[in-house]
Amino acid sequence: MQFKADSHLVSIYSSFTPLSHGFYACIFRASHQEMAKSLPVIAQEDLDSFTLTRTGSGFALKAFHISWNTHIAVKLLTSQDTTEREWKLLLQDIASVRCFESERLLPSLGIYQYHRLVGIVTEWMNNGSLHSLIHEHQLYPEVPFPLLIRILSDVAEGLHHLHSLKPAFCHCSLKPSNVLLDMQYRAKISDYGLTNWRKKQLRSDLQNCNQRNCQDLLYLPPEILEGGPPSQEGDIYSFGILCWESLSRQKPFEGQTTLLEVLTGICSGLRPGISEKFIPSNLPERNRLLQFIALCWYQEPDYRPRTAECVDLLNGILISINKEEISTAIYNLMDAKETALNACKGSEIYTLQTGICNSEVSMWHEVKITL
Amino acid sequence: MQFKADSHLVSIYSSFTPLSHGFYACIFRASHQEMAKSLPVIAQEDLDSFTLTRTGSGFALKAFHISWNTHIAVKLLTSQDTTEREWKLLLQDIASVRCFESERLLPSLGIYQYHRLVGIVTEWMNNGSLHSLIHEHQLYPEVPFPLLIRILSDVAEGLHHLHSLKPAFCHCSLKPSNVLLDMQYRAKISDYGLTNWRKKQLRSDLQNCNQRNCQDLLYLPPEILEGGPPSQEGDIYSFGILCWESLSRQKPFEGQTTLLEVLTGICSGLRPGISEKFIPSNLPERNRLLQFIALCWYQEPDYRPRTAECVDLLNGILISINKEEISTAIYNLMDAKETALNACKGSEIYTLQTGICNSEVSMWHEVKITL
Repeated sequence: MQFKADSHLVSIYSSFTPLSHGFYACIFRASHQEMAKSLPVIAQEDLDSFTLTRTGSGFALKAFHISWNTHIAVKLLTSQDTTEREWKLLLQDIASVRCFESERLLPSLGIYQYHRLVGIVTEWMNNGSLHSLIHEHQLYPEVPFPLLIRILSDVAEGLHHLHSLKPAFCHCSLKPSNVLLDMQYRAKISDYGLTNWRKKQLRSDLQNCNQRNCQDLLYLPPEILEGGPPSQEGDIYSFGILCWESLSRQKPFEGQTTLLEVLTGICSGLRPGISEKFIPSNLPERNRLLQFIALCWYQEPDYRPRTAECVDLLNGILISINKEEISTAIYNLMDAKETALNACKGSEIYTLQTGICNSEVSMWHEVKITL
Repeated sequence: MQFKADSHLVSIYSSFTPLSHGFYACIFRASHQEMAKSLPVIAQEDLDSFTLTRTGSGFALKAFHISWNTHIAVKLLTSQDTTEREWKLLLQDIASVRCFESERLLPSLGIYQYHRLVGIVTEWMNNGSLHSLIHEHQLYPEVPFPLLIRILSDVAEGLHHLHSLKPAFCHCSLKPSNVLLDMQYRAKISDYGLTNWRKKQLRSDLQNCNQRNCQDLLYLPPEILEGGPPSQEGDIYSFGILCWESLSRQKPFEGQTTLLEVLTGICSGLRPGISEKFIPSNLPERNRLLQFIALCWYQEPDYRPRTAECVDLLNGILISINKEEISTAIYNLMDAKETALNACKGSEIYTLQTGICNSEVSMWHEVKITL
């Protein structure tokens, strides 16, 4: 089996720049301006050991990048009928945000394109998404409070970074499946900065929902559901819902009548419940956190806090937590996860044990070059 | 590389029935009752040459089934957090509809399950879905009227078969991506009969939309959007929208304000436009077809036609069309498609040519057994 050893860098202005010394060399040597111009299209021949996995928001490929000598993730885009013009917008968007260096943002390393499959390439995040952490109860019977606060603080910092750029960037689609967790359960925000691509692909902002999972609509504030433009205040609303979901480990509005009723309800002030049924009474800092969440999802956008205030509040709570408590929490979490994963090994194929292998290999492939 | 040569049949009542003479033998020898009981879980080891493809409604795997010596499709289910109980409901649902023998329904051949990936196995349909035929303008610059009428007539017949069962079955999710086309562009309805799975997975009927693509909501009648139960009349409404989409080659309500406004509009009588902008004035049988569509999507469910009437009307139009016209239409279509496919070969990797390879291989894999 033959593989090309080099990665290909394709400028969005169509000049071809093959690199013999790998992609990371380019990242660290090139200036921001150069980076924004050149954007890697990941060649199929550079990838090996494909794995298809189900993620919090769809499907992703895990693959081994031969010249980078590392695992990467390819988040597959489901949008249909991509035209050449839309493809260029996507390349431009990704190039424009590649230089937003922040530990709390997951950088796009390139674009994967193979026939009808299009995906965004990022580093492989070992511990899946915040969505898994919250909702996979089998895998994570408990999510310790100290860790949760650190994750929410990480997300607030990432969002603050996006909003502090000149011009400011709005995420527009902040939700638990767009928060990914590395080996140490530090959070990074993904899927930011695809504004032009989304705009063009989906025409107006709420027509986003043509492609969105309906569940995603529940993270949108009233003013956007009613057709308003993306905004920083809109991101703060989504962050409020994300915080509620993390603390309650429930999906917003689950089990409530019809989607149509929920959406019209949101526009008239309906919000997720904050009773003990949803947020346990023994939660540390319960009142302070619930007041904060209520401010984030306030009906009137101007009353919602700015990202700096979110960072301050969450860091304030985080500081009161001993660092050792966080390490212990992570250790316990890893331990419980390993136990759950071992428990499912050797089970019969027809007893489904889904939802407990988020970082495990789902299907091993070896690429067979047939073209 | 070692492969098991036999397929596995796992009864939903947990008795294990390995078959040495292949699965099709079982289909044709077993009685309906036996078939409803035994349901094949397709073993990973029985599949080879995986291909991941993007479909009208998500992702599917194409694979070669070694013991059946044929290509199969695995429609990947995106629903999260499948529990063992939900998995059993899915098996029961699929087993219960396996005996609905009709040329116009795509039978489920089994279930694919590999770690977190779950999918429904069917035969491989060479010409993709009605969704591709309608919306991939690059691949199908023209869709001849005679062929379109035959496809709509096929769909009406399939739906009639479902509604004629005792007890009657509702499809609940009829849309162009659930109508698949074989080598001769004969249509088969897929994704029917998963009622219990959907009910359990998604709680109430409209909470279906938790998992649905929002676009799918536009195929639902007002009474279901408002929380009513699935019904035959609801399927007829969806069929009306599907007919409009096929004749107009446009997506319902595309470019119209927000989804929320469209959904509340539908409840007050909003329907897709039938002006010449949408349905060309030179369309054969234009008036008769538009009157029929308007009846199908009538606000009051009782006034909508029954499937028998749909079959009668469409067959009536079909009979007036010379059979040779249909053959010629298909020949021309195949010819245009081949030209489009050839035109994209050899293009640079960064000039995306998506949407024109729906029946082509998107990624070849060879399964590497690592477990």
